[in-house]
Amino acid sequence: MRELVADIPRRRRLRAGMVGGGRGSFFAPVHRAALRLSNRFDLVAGAFSSDPATGREAGAALGLAPARNHGDFRAFAEDEAGRADPVEVVIVVTPNHLHFEPCRQFLAAGIPVICDKPLAATAAEARTLARLAAADDRFLAVTYTYTGYPMVRDARARIREGEIGEVRFVAVEYLLEWLADDPARLGKGGVWRGDPARAGATGALGDVGTHAFHLAEFLTGQRCTALAARLLSTVAGFGLDDTDVVQMEFDGGAHGLLWASLAAPGHRNGLRFRIVGSRGTLEWQQEAPETLRLSRLNAADLVYRRGQADNTPDARTAISLPAGNPEAYLEALANLYCDCATALEAGRDWRRATPVPLADAAEGLRGVLLSEAAVASSRARAWVPFPAG
Amino acid sequence: MRELVADIPRRRRLRAGMVGGGRGSFFAPVHRAALRLSNRFDLVAGAFSSDPATGREAGAALGLAPARNHGDFRAFAEDEAGRADPVEVVIVVTPNHLHFEPCRQFLAAGIPVICDKPLAATAAEARTLARLAAADDRFLAVTYTYTGYPMVRDARARIREGEIGEVRFVAVEYLLEWLADDPARLGKGGVWRGDPARAGATGALGDVGTHAFHLAEFLTGQRCTALAARLLSTVAGFGLDDTDVVQMEFDGGAHGLLWASLAAPGHRNGLRFRIVGSRGTLEWQQEAPETLRLSRLNAADLVYRRGQADNTPDARTAISLPAGNPEAYLEALANLYCDCATALEAGRDWRRATPVPLADAAEGLRGVLLSEAAVASSRARAWVPFPAG
Amino acid sequence: MRELVADIPRRRRLRAGMVGGGRGSFFAPVHRAALRLSNRFDLVAGAFSSDPATGREAGAALGLAPARNHGDFRAFAEDEAGRADPVEVVIVVTPNHLHFEPCRQFLAAGIPVICDKPLAATAAEARTLARLAAADDRFLAVTYTYTGYPMVRDARARIREGEIGEVRFVAVEYLLEWLADDPARLGKGGVWRGDPARAGATGALGDVGTHAFHLAEFLTGQRCTALAARLLSTVAGFGLDDTDVVQMEFDGGAHGLLWASLAAPGHRNGLRFRIVGSRGTLEWQQEAPETLRLSRLNAADLVYRRGQADNTPDARTAISLPAGNPEAYLEALANLYCDCATALEAGRDWRRATPVPLADAAEGLRGVLLSEAAVASSRARAWVPFPAG
Amino acid sequence: MRELVADIPRRRRLRAGMVGGGRGSFFAPVHRAALRLSNRFDLVAGAFSSDPATGREAGAALGLAPARNHGDFRAFAEDEAGRADPVEVVIVVTPNHLHFEPCRQFLAAGIPVICDKPLAATAAEARTLARLAAADDRFLAVTYTYTGYPMVRDARARIREGEIGEVRFVAVEYLLEWLADDPARLGKGGVWRGDPARAGATGALGDVGTHAFHLAEFLTGQRCTALAARLLSTVAGFGLDDTDVVQMEFDGGAHGLLWASLAAPGHRNGLRFRIVGSRGTLEWQQEAPETLRLSRLNAADLVYRRGQADNTPDARTAISLPAGNPEAYLEALANLYCDCATALEAGRDWRRATPVPLADAAEGLRGVLLSEAAVASSRARAWVPFPAG
Repeated sequence: MRELVADIPRRRRLRAGMVGGGRGSFFAPVHRAALRLSNRFDLVAGAFSSDPATGREAGAALGLAPARNHGDFRAFAEDEAGRADPVEVVIVVTPNHLHFEPCRQFLAAGIPVICDKPLAATAAEARTLARLAAADDRFLAVTYTYTGYPMVRDARARIREGEIGEVRFVAVEYLLEWLADDPARLGKGGVWRGDPARAGATGALGDVGTHAFHLAEFLTGQRCTALAARLLSTVAGFGLDDTDVVQMEFDGGAHGLLWASLAAPGHRNGLRFRIVGSRGTLEWQQEAPETLRLSRLNAADLVYRRGQADNTPDARTAISLPAGNPEAYLEALANLYCDCATALEAGRDWRRATPVPLADAAEGLRGVLLSEAAVASSRARAWVPFPAG
Repeated sequence: MRELVADIPRRRRLRAGMVGGGRGSFFAPVHRAALRLSNRFDLVAGAFSSDPATGREAGAALGLAPARNHGDFRAFAEDEAGRADPVEVVIVVTPNHLHFEPCRQFLAAGIPVICDKPLAATAAEARTLARLAAADDRFLAVTYTYTGYPMVRDARARIREGEIGEVRFVAVEYLLEWLADDPARLGKGGVWRGDPARAGATGALGDVGTHAFHLAEFLTGQRCTALAARLLSTVAGFGLDDTDVVQMEFDGGAHGLLWASLAAPGHRNGLRFRIVGSRGTLEWQQEAPETLRLSRLNAADLVYRRGQADNTPDARTAISLPAGNPEAYLEALANLYCDCATALEAGRDWRRATPVPLADAAEGLRGVLLSEAAVASSRARAWVPFPAG
Repeated sequence: MRELVADIPRRRRLRAGMVGGGRGSFFAPVHRAALRLSNRFDLVAGAFSSDPATGREAGAALGLAPARNHGDFRAFAEDEAGRADPVEVVIVVTPNHLHFEPCRQFLAAGIPVICDKPLAATAAEARTLARLAAADDRFLAVTYTYTGYPMVRDARARIREGEIGEVRFVAVEYLLEWLADDPARLGKGGVWRGDPARAGATGALGDVGTHAFHLAEFLTGQRCTALAARLLSTVAGFGLDDTDVVQMEFDGGAHGLLWASLAAPGHRNGLRFRIVGSRGTLEWQQEAPETLRLSRLNAADLVYRRGQADNTPDARTAISLPAGNPEAYLEALANLYCDCATALEAGRDWRRATPVPLADAAEGLRGVLLSEAAVASSRARAWVPFPAG
Repeated sequence: MRELVADIPRRRRLRAGMVGGGRGSFFAPVHRAALRLSNRFDLVAGAFSSDPATGREAGAALGLAPARNHGDFRAFAEDEAGRADPVEVVIVVTPNHLHFEPCRQFLAAGIPVICDKPLAATAAEARTLARLAAADDRFLAVTYTYTGYPMVRDARARIREGEIGEVRFVAVEYLLEWLADDPARLGKGGVWRGDPARAGATGALGDVGTHAFHLAEFLTGQRCTALAARLLSTVAGFGLDDTDVVQMEFDGGAHGLLWASLAAPGHRNGLRFRIVGSRGTLEWQQEAPETLRLSRLNAADLVYRRGQADNTPDARTAISLPAGNPEAYLEALANLYCDCATALEAGRDWRRATPVPLADAAEGLRGVLLSEAAVASSRARAWVPFPAG
């Protein structure tokens, strides 16, 4: 409890660096706000842009010492490797197709990495990173933000404890609207998300569907073993799929359904799950993240609420405010960063240090492989094994 | 407006008969309550059971004259054919696998038929009925109850008027829980629904999925042209599919997704649709039928409510009470019966007499063919055309 | 269970008459639809208007035999008194200020009465009726419709069983919008509701506030002992209060608050209660009548739903359809009529025959006294005892 | 837009100090989290406890230089007055009855003050502070947190623009449950809140009712001119009112109703308003702060959502994340701090610098006078003018 507001007595803050996230970046400032909120990191070094001047403007704005405000992530990595007080973690928030190289270099330099999702733009890159990280069980965490929500963790814990019985069906969806009327108006964001060279093999699936897929596995503890995907283009002029349907089979016997879209008007950030078990269904929606609804067989629904006495221990580890003083997106992301701090402080024991598993490089790889498998399935109009042999 | 409560001045009531629906029938008394509510029919004749004594007990309870209280639907049909004042319509509410024969006989006798959905247990039977009805454009209506809800009609009208732009994606679901824990406890209903000899080719799909499928076409005016279905058995001991996923393509370019289940704990009668267009999404849920939500591109949601001044004309034709005095399931079914009465009064012009199209025999046939196509698709794990060549 | 759809085996239907409710009446046809739905009464006699021709048109439309289709309620009462098969109950649905005389005459004739609420336009009249009814414990029921909702009865039963602990605060509200913008456009309804000569001592309070007040006592079993009312006119040109606030004290120690308005835009038929106890709060809203929400001290909310296994026995007596097939306003009113039928069949034992108490003449009197007390309190800007000494 | 995540280019951060908020403080760490999130202040000095050792532990944990980590707020104030780089604002988060002295001293020292609500424990103290602040129009802001929510500002702007027509009725409520079952278990918080010597003249009203009262005036722009209050003790053993009802009259002709409670089980932080105008009603709930519902006369409801294109300019000034990525309580408080920073940077022009008015000392005084007036009214069971002559 009080995860983000426990400032007395002092907890040490870790030295963090950042790659990417200069002026014009949309989500990097959100990550930095979450870092401030977490109170577990000091941002002391960085290379914030592929354009050195832009990058240095950002570093100055963020209060970095000039010596640690780099024009280039390679120089940044080299410099840190030689310092007595190197950053204890580097956060990679470059555009999606530029995750690979900085992740690789910092891993090689022995510096832990937190990388925004997706881990990489191609399966080959993601495999390389996963192999590098696995070699020495190095710390590489992928920010699947939504697992930072307390009630998502509450759902996972309840499923593990058998509260809904045997898991039978997993329905996840992630619907957005921004592409709905005119991709041309979307500017830079729209362009790269629809450009196979930069967005990867898929559009909506890689951009948002992967969050939903990750949640399905995170919540149930079951692994997808086969899938049948339909990648659709409902909006003209966008180079990749904007709407997807993926049917899934899981190793624990559950079946599943994923629906993702960037072109669903009236949906802002519509991530949502329903996990159907033999005794009840758990439902959660990201736009109303404070509650988790358990509907039960022939009995009253239960509406669990963050911060109440019946929260599971897993949920409690990610709570800062009392029930009724709502928490939301930034708190969820800050919870992830708190977990990262806790894990980093644990050193080689990092995997056992957090209440719920951090998404590691292998998890990040699955997210990238999802796109690859979905493309294959959609072309063949057939089920394919996952991950492919 | 005031459809069900307009009793002054008097409207003539039609003479109606019923086949099936004796003691122990679950839904027939619901139909009779809707008939009373509609105030458009007098139930004057019937054969309420395959067991003559049981049937006659029902007819007596319902106030029928002994001469028109038959022990057998064949005798009933013959008798009516010879009367000066024959029933103007017969309502068939026998168990699903026994719809065919009474429908056929009354059609042959020249008496209009209202048949509970599904029209028949096999495609062959349904084709026969559709052919018989088509021969002379005879009146045969199938009670797809949910099209009787005013806000379902409101949604259809708004889509036709272009309020959500081009229809791109149709998500329908129909989830129930009754099979969830133990099919053995389900008694008679559970048994026949899982028995291929009586339920037809599918379980959940034919029982409830067909309602969702019908709504998808009713709302969008588009026809399904191909589908990929996955028929699942998640509960042991039930002879047919209990959970289904069907992907659909429509002739107007829309794609669709149908999820149906009899084994989803926490869902009572969870019929629901979301129609995604290029400008907005319309959402409706049967368990809260009074409102229709239009979520729009980057603007406030609109929550339309039955009975308000901005209802479409189609919705208004099915409204009895002012907004705020809620209407629900029985009113929806009674609205369907009112439409039937209006159509029957129009004689040969029956197809043009109602505000929204009645589901006719051809429509009923599509519902039966859906099961056939889904079985084929699920076995082949492949897309199939719909209806098959 | 299956209250309104239990038509086999046959239940005897009672002979009913009606006073008022001819062409132009708004709520009388709603009552008749509820009667049809209840399947417990046959409407066999009546005097439907103060204008004989209008009244007889209504009776003809409703299928009455000419001999029992009266031009005047006095003739009707006299005729029934002399018949071998008199009506077993008369239903009074005249305009509010015309309830008294027919009630009085039929009571005097020994015929049970069901009277729409309010019982009478003045306290003097209501006292007279209450005295007449009490004399021989005659049957006079007032249709406080909302007590017919199963989940209202569920709430009452849960409170009685102590599920929310000691009742501490009772918040009831009833908000409508029809008067909001322009009383002039309201026609006949608006005129009489704002006319002290016809509406009684109060406007909003007598029209809708009395329902909320009745619910407060019905639910808690506590009786109001004192009140402080503020009767407000927020809309120009309406002759009576359109908005009211009433604070209440109850004999069981609870406090309460009533807010009623005819001039609250955006509220259709916004009756709602929250009963705050020492362990939880029960909340219900008429526009979503199928669920009852129990919010509990530091624990998940429970959302009870009509038709589920955990409904109280009191709720079960008023249920016709399974959970998920929603019931609504007409079913609630029909449930009241079923209770009346059950009570009437019990003869002198009528008070003990129904699952929850019927609102009798004494209850109806309290509703009328409420207006009287509220006017006194509002004028004096002071608390007054209730009912006045 | 992007208020809390606009970190490039750099905005200067103001030097801030804090009085109170050492170990054990519940809300001070929340304020500090909001300060971090705001990115507009550096906490550089403080006196965090009346116990010097406790205070210095806090200062150390918060990274203060020892020279500015004081054991006593008087020493703190004196020190700052003599520095070349004094704090630009001091934030007072002592227990409620200890606000007065530090506020007075820092005002006297010419240092702007942000004080947690309520401004002071007694009307006399609050008047003194208001007078001191008024003397030279000094900056003193009271943190009425809930005005920091974008959709609260959206509501205010819509009301000002006439979207709901003439404001007729204002219903505000603020319900909590913590006192519900046993005040004894409440520890320190429960004790002082029920202790007249420390909590002030009222319990629930001063603690939470004042927020609701402030919102009523903030939203409508109307000032309360008279009130009738009922201060109730429904829980034994708590020294002050735990539940209150206050009726209000406003100078613009509106009427109002406030309901506050600390003892309403099932309510966590249940602040909520409904503003009824002649054309529509605006409703907002703190536990679901992202949307604002406009229900309209005989037309579809509009559900406005933070971050969408139809937000008012006032709302936009307090938005950081896109619609769908929810914001909540900490963001609201951080928005208030951003406003304070903007106002402080404007120097003498501070009152005109913010999008919506900051709650100043005069506003804080009204909050304290509310308790005084309510006690008088409740004792006399009478309406009293507000503020008293």
